[in-house]
Parts: sequence; C-alpha cells; structure tokens
Amino acid sequence: MSEEQRNRTNVDIYGQQYTIVGTESTSQIRFVCSKVDDKMREIKSMNPSLDTGKLAVLTAVNAVNDYIKLKERFEELEREIKRLKG
Amino acid sequence: MSEEQRNRTNVDIYGQQYTIVGTESTSQIRFVCSKVDDKMREIKSMNPSLDTGKLAVLTAVNAVNDYIKLKERFEELEREIKRLKG
Repeated sequence: MSEEQRNRTNVDIYGQQYTIVGTESTSQIRFVCSKVDDKMREIKSMNPSLDTGKLAVLTAVNAVNDYIKLKERFEELEREIKRLKG
Repeated sequence: MSEEQRNRTNVDIYGQQYTIVGTESTSQIRFVCSKVDDKMREIKSMNPSLDTGKLAVLTAVNAVNDYIKLKERFEELEREIKRLKG
C-alpha cells in the first residue's frame, strides 16, 4: 500500500489521446510525453514509410538504448565518487 | 561523414520483425530490444485492452521518464564529483 498521490494526466502523443496515471507531477508527465512525441516525429522523418505502431516501438528502442548507455556512465560516476571518498 | 561501422540487426519485438541500424553492437541492440519486449509485455499485463501501437507509445513514455529521472541523478553525481575534487 502506498499513500503516494497518483495523478491522472491527459496527453496527446502523435495525434492520439492517452491518460497517463502515475506518481509524477502533471507537468513532468507532459514534459516526458512531449519528448516522446518529438522523438516519434524525428524517427518518422527519417523513415517515412513506418506505420505508427512500428514507429512507437522504434521510439521505445531508442529511449531504452539511451537509458542503458546513461546507466553505464552513471555507474562509472558512482565508482569515481567511491574512489574519491577513499 | 563518419567511418563508424553501422550494424544491421534483425530483431523480433512483441511478435514483429525489425531491422535496427546503428553503431551499437549487435549484442547491445539485441539486449535493448529484449528490454523493450519485456516492458511491452509488463505494461500489457497491467492494461490488457491496449492495442499494440498504444502499448508501444506507453513503453516509450516509461523509458523516456526513466531516462529523465536518471539524468537528474547523473547531474547530481557530476556536481558531487566537482565538489569532491574541490
């Protein structure tokens, strides 16, 4: 059980309506969704023949790839901090 | 112009075939795509009525949200390292 507040936010991503439910603020959710919308448009411009479903999957692939690469750099910094703190 | 090698990797994500082109290794691309597939199945299990396109969009929303939150923690670590190095 959690007492964290769950916000419901209506957003438009690539012309479709979604209701996002989560503990993030509405402004954070809107910011994240605008990034997804931007990325879908960017990938579409490079691959005009993609249908929306495949476009969304490739957007997810890009985002997860970015996350994993940042996670590696994050872990390097954690190791550096440990080293600096002796 | 770039001399970085671009790999073409065929993957299956949520029952669809994709050819991913990028500078990451084939094993990295396969790892990322298996994460996307897992996440789609996890979100589907919580929202059984979602169609594949919306499911993929929500997977991208989750991944971008995770990225942005990790980015904030990454920047905190960078500030801490700067402080530790005086």
